[in-house]
Amino acid sequence: MATMTTRVLASMDTGVDDALALAYLAAAPGCELLGVIGTYGNVAMPTAVRNTRYVLSLLGAGQVPVLAGSAHPTWADAFVPDAGCAAFHGPDGLGGCGPASGGTPGAGAVPADAAPPVGVVSVGGYPWGDPHANPARTAPQPEDGDAAADGIDFLVEQVRRHGRGLTVLATGPLTDVAEALRRAPDIAPRLRLVMMGGSLTQPGNCWDAVAETNVIQDPQAADRVFHSGADVTMVGLDVTHRCLLGPDAVRRWRGRAGEASPLRVLADMADFSILANRRADPALFAGGMPLHDPLAAAVALDPTLVTTVDLAMRAETRTADGHGVRGRTIGDPTGLVDPAVPRTHVALGVDADRFLGLFADRLAMWADRAMPAPSAC
Amino acid sequence: MATMTTRVLASMDTGVDDALALAYLAAAPGCELLGVIGTYGNVAMPTAVRNTRYVLSLLGAGQVPVLAGSAHPTWADAFVPDAGCAAFHGPDGLGGCGPASGGTPGAGAVPADAAPPVGVVSVGGYPWGDPHANPARTAPQPEDGDAAADGIDFLVEQVRRHGRGLTVLATGPLTDVAEALRRAPDIAPRLRLVMMGGSLTQPGNCWDAVAETNVIQDPQAADRVFHSGADVTMVGLDVTHRCLLGPDAVRRWRGRAGEASPLRVLADMADFSILANRRADPALFAGGMPLHDPLAAAVALDPTLVTTVDLAMRAETRTADGHGVRGRTIGDPTGLVDPAVPRTHVALGVDADRFLGLFADRLAMWADRAMPAPSAC
Repeated sequence: MATMTTRVLASMDTGVDDALALAYLAAAPGCELLGVIGTYGNVAMPTAVRNTRYVLSLLGAGQVPVLAGSAHPTWADAFVPDAGCAAFHGPDGLGGCGPASGGTPGAGAVPADAAPPVGVVSVGGYPWGDPHANPARTAPQPEDGDAAADGIDFLVEQVRRHGRGLTVLATGPLTDVAEALRRAPDIAPRLRLVMMGGSLTQPGNCWDAVAETNVIQDPQAADRVFHSGADVTMVGLDVTHRCLLGPDAVRRWRGRAGEASPLRVLADMADFSILANRRADPALFAGGMPLHDPLAAAVALDPTLVTTVDLAMRAETRTADGHGVRGRTIGDPTGLVDPAVPRTHVALGVDADRFLGLFADRLAMWADRAMPAPSAC
Repeated sequence: MATMTTRVLASMDTGVDDALALAYLAAAPGCELLGVIGTYGNVAMPTAVRNTRYVLSLLGAGQVPVLAGSAHPTWADAFVPDAGCAAFHGPDGLGGCGPASGGTPGAGAVPADAAPPVGVVSVGGYPWGDPHANPARTAPQPEDGDAAADGIDFLVEQVRRHGRGLTVLATGPLTDVAEALRRAPDIAPRLRLVMMGGSLTQPGNCWDAVAETNVIQDPQAADRVFHSGADVTMVGLDVTHRCLLGPDAVRRWRGRAGEASPLRVLADMADFSILANRRADPALFAGGMPLHDPLAAAVALDPTLVTTVDLAMRAETRTADGHGVRGRTIGDPTGLVDPAVPRTHVALGVDADRFLGLFADRLAMWADRAMPAPSAC
């Protein structure tokens, strides 16, 4: 049987579940990964670039181009990772299993009494000084992201070349995609995007229980993408919170993973996240960590894993009377009266059993591979 | 062809669209209206009772029992109608066409500098002193609601008698239904409810663009109803904002309405609401007034008019970190991990053309009837 090839270009703020998504994509038959853009979000952009390179090399996919994406949201001049993200993804973004781990949480890249950096600063999506801004005080990560080629130009080129024969997968904030659309508005009708982010029918996962973490980073960018006319599938908390990876599954990985297999490192990362999620919400995540980014990756390869409703969407940029709540993803009422307002395919249902089966099968492929270099973990 | 009989018992805060819903029900073949409970919401409870009696008598349905419902939300000791509701429904709740209209807006049942009434007071769902509390300063309405029999006991009796052979239709706050469930928890598994209220995929219609007006009145009651185990269909802004009654349709009513027909009064009411809605949001309501309550009434008789998703729902009772936004209707995440959490049938799709056709046909039935008494309008 011939396997269809699906070209994927990813924009990732590489933390733990992004790493698992990479492992899923790299194991998927017929997936051609054209490149990965490291972007800010769970971690700073240079850390995302490093983590992506590390994970791809771990998977023997070091030939995949890794490029530099956005270093901060469109609305800010600088970005500082949030302590919440550090708690879910570890001091290095990879649960302490990253390329140069050993950073001591609390050792203070951003001391509690630090003066704000110059300009408008986003702390995990909140302006410096906002009660929700909560800078990560982890060891500084080496900043080699600037050495990577420009990912946004690459994204534009690839969409121009392949059109909807390419799926762009965004597992972090939508800043890269919005910037590509700003630089090259012509790509909008040719762009197929699967985004992990937002929430329509479930509470958000930020402080206010309204916003979702990827969208709160850059609601302006998300709103531009929703209204761009691109073919957008939103894989939000509506479905990712139904797909949990539990400790038993990870124990099975360990049971079959060779001594020097990438699956061991992936298991360490997953265990970190499972514990962090359970601490954050013992009821909702009793069953494990939500597979946010792996589900979006799986949907990029097989849209039939989810059922969607087509709805004009907006991401709200202000919390104020008449404006909703900053970071909320909700129907855009102008779409009720104007059929020209673009529709987003919003995933509301998921075949969780089928996805979890596929995920288990694909991750198991890493059991017998050998890592190209000794694990850092 | 035999017509199936559908028994309906309604709880209504009778304003303009409630009146149109009554006209729809009274014209629907096979609809047996067992009674209408007047409740606070668009207007004070005694006004709702009076308005309901007036509209039913206008329709020649004066034999339908009208009963007294809740006078205030569960969380408050007293209720004052909101100026916003007065703007949409007129000083008397019926667009100035009510039984004793002629009240002068601004004449001051609640002067701007009035001291708060005793106890905890709800002003249209907001506590007295809240920046959103905005008391209606309309002429006081005669308070004859107390003369009506207790509607909540009647609701309990009818559900006990008919079970799911009866559909309870709530077009106002859910206080009556929550109180019935408190008095008689045994009715929960026998109760079939169609509620107009809430919003899942569209912004709300209150100041904050999150809450919907019926739910903000008594979020605690809505939350109890969602979790009661009753069979609940939520007809919210997701669908009612797609069903607009425009001025052309009302002009056609006038063209065919006899000199003394009830349709003339209904047309006057509808024109008031069409104008008020267009003033409030010229873009969203360019096409007319949203048929909130008539759509819920139609769904009570024919559930196939909407497509629903089954979702564990919550109504949030506080605006605070970790709690969401007071009055928001959103998925209850406990339902993601616990199949025992009751599901609500949330209407997300509507066959608007079919509904609007049915609505036009049924309302047209009132063209040739004669009113039992001269119109007050």
